[in-house]
Amino acid sequence: MPPTKRVCVLGSGNWGSTAARIIGNNVLRLPDFDDRVNIWVYEELVNGRKLTEIINTQHENVKYLPGHRLPDNVTAVADAREAVRGATHIVVVIPHQFVQDLLATIRGTVDPGARAISLIKGIAISSEGMTTMTQIIHRALGIPVASLSGANIADEIAEEKYCETTIGCRDAADAAAWRSLFDTSYFQVNCVADVVGVEFCGALKNVVAVGAGFIDGLGLGNNTKAAIIRIGFLEMRRLAMHLSGAQIQDATFMESCGMADVITTCYGGRNRRLAEEFVKTGKRMSQLEQELLNGQKLQGYLTAGEVYSYIESRGIAEHFPLFTNIYQICYQGRHPRSIFDGLNVDFSRDAATPTPTPAPNHHHHNH
Amino acid sequence: MPPTKRVCVLGSGNWGSTAARIIGNNVLRLPDFDDRVNIWVYEELVNGRKLTEIINTQHENVKYLPGHRLPDNVTAVADAREAVRGATHIVVVIPHQFVQDLLATIRGTVDPGARAISLIKGIAISSEGMTTMTQIIHRALGIPVASLSGANIADEIAEEKYCETTIGCRDAADAAAWRSLFDTSYFQVNCVADVVGVEFCGALKNVVAVGAGFIDGLGLGNNTKAAIIRIGFLEMRRLAMHLSGAQIQDATFMESCGMADVITTCYGGRNRRLAEEFVKTGKRMSQLEQELLNGQKLQGYLTAGEVYSYIESRGIAEHFPLFTNIYQICYQGRHPRSIFDGLNVDFSRDAATPTPTPAPNHHHHNH
Repeated sequence: MPPTKRVCVLGSGNWGSTAARIIGNNVLRLPDFDDRVNIWVYEELVNGRKLTEIINTQHENVKYLPGHRLPDNVTAVADAREAVRGATHIVVVIPHQFVQDLLATIRGTVDPGARAISLIKGIAISSEGMTTMTQIIHRALGIPVASLSGANIADEIAEEKYCETTIGCRDAADAAAWRSLFDTSYFQVNCVADVVGVEFCGALKNVVAVGAGFIDGLGLGNNTKAAIIRIGFLEMRRLAMHLSGAQIQDATFMESCGMADVITTCYGGRNRRLAEEFVKTGKRMSQLEQELLNGQKLQGYLTAGEVYSYIESRGIAEHFPLFTNIYQICYQGRHPRSIFDGLNVDFSRDAATPTPTPAPNHHHHNH
Repeated sequence: MPPTKRVCVLGSGNWGSTAARIIGNNVLRLPDFDDRVNIWVYEELVNGRKLTEIINTQHENVKYLPGHRLPDNVTAVADAREAVRGATHIVVVIPHQFVQDLLATIRGTVDPGARAISLIKGIAISSEGMTTMTQIIHRALGIPVASLSGANIADEIAEEKYCETTIGCRDAADAAAWRSLFDTSYFQVNCVADVVGVEFCGALKNVVAVGAGFIDGLGLGNNTKAAIIRIGFLEMRRLAMHLSGAQIQDATFMESCGMADVITTCYGGRNRRLAEEFVKTGKRMSQLEQELLNGQKLQGYLTAGEVYSYIESRGIAEHFPLFTNIYQICYQGRHPRSIFDGLNVDFSRDAATPTPTPAPNHHHHNH
């Protein structure tokens, strides 16, 4: 039987290149999948040479994942339509601000029987509720879309340091296929049915990381940071209960995308770092983005603003003192020390939507 | 009305002195409590002077909490019976190996109407089940015993850096009194009814910290450590389900004594440090205790041994791969890299005993 499935990775940054590396190795052992994995590369010149050409000859993304060889069966393609043609499994891993344009480009080319998975962090919350990346991709392409998120700093995965991730996928057979593409001995995949919960955790943890960065900026210690992580985690879970229609499952918070990603982001991430500098320098977030990140936009403080709009419009801000304090410190000039105001909230009766008994074998393990 | 209540703190180490400092300040604002707070000090000479005398004249425990003034109403007493006489509220905060001797000493002197609270980390697990410090104190003294544990590195609290703690106390009125003694703007107390759960978390987190130290010793990163913390936390919760008769509540794991203390201990504690050195040097734990801690015994690897005895005797070790791996690395010469073996366990249907609806106002907040 010839292989009937083929993977395309849309995006070739740090995380996209890392994902292509894992998938490129895994497909060689999966008889259902064509060996060739296309990776769509936004074409640019690196030292006068096209990046696609470098990847296809040197088998290394010298700009975004230097020092790690990509398997020979990963092929860089500069035209997104060409890259996606014939793909049954589409991995979307580009900066969120470019998603709409890319979806418009590939819309007519994507196979109607294909499936997608989103590795993009970023949700939009308004007074109406939440829109997630899987929802945006599904509306544009009309195909099922899964999500992947976890305690996954890309460089550490590229170095094959052990970690876990969570795939949210409603269909058990689809989940098994995605897992077979991503799971390795050092990158352990757990699957849950809660697509949106995985995305929610991946976005909201950045707000908690802003709070953790304030603690670092204030020169406080491990006790204090652990308190902020705990309260932030519980406000995330409480927000999930309140977000109308989201139906996020409580158990999702215990997966890598939840608890583990909150911890790793509060100790190592860029949102944390920006918030620390915010306290130490007194500069605005946007100015620090220019100075420290070449103008790259971070999610944490933007999501904090969206979350506050939601809880304020619903009249429930008082139940989210940490999120409220973080918002007011970022946007209204309150002193970072006010992060502790009113944090004595009772979370003991909270839970997001209770987790239903899963279908047999849905929470897979393949070792 | 003259005050009818009086506090005695049994123990004057780092944590005992910090507790006496907080309580000494709080009683001045509590009309029910006598201003005088006795702190039992194991008498020793410091630069030729008695430690009790130094504390009662300089108002500083120069040996165990240097640099932080104790309130004048905290009185050091060298005789434990004298210290505890007339006390209605007894705070037990001595190294666990000295508890039995102290209890035998004070048994006939403790007021039968008194209450105690244990700040001691340390439980004993055997094939029969678990014995906790509050149970030992209760059996010896015949009075109600509460527990206190949280993400509480004593030095950081003495510096008045914000943190949280958890008091486990069955009786709501007793819980309110304990909270009034400990709660400050920088030391936030939450109360739960689950006395044993608080102690369980305080002891088991040290096993997870040993795992986290192995990760640091192996030079792995934030992703990996977050994965170990997540899995360790879920094995703690699973062990609570299995410990016959313990009836630990699921919500306790979300308090400071649970999630927050696991995090802070895995980033900052001595169990973590010892385990890191164990990997880097190849020396035995007991040897490292001699070299790094003047022979002081740490709980983490000892508790790991007790936990393994329990799960092995019950035939459930396979459901605790991380605890099993940590035990075998500590005691059986397995390589620290084997910590990752078989970690792909499904925790999604786990919960300790579901939390009952609490009595009104039991989960107090006094701000």
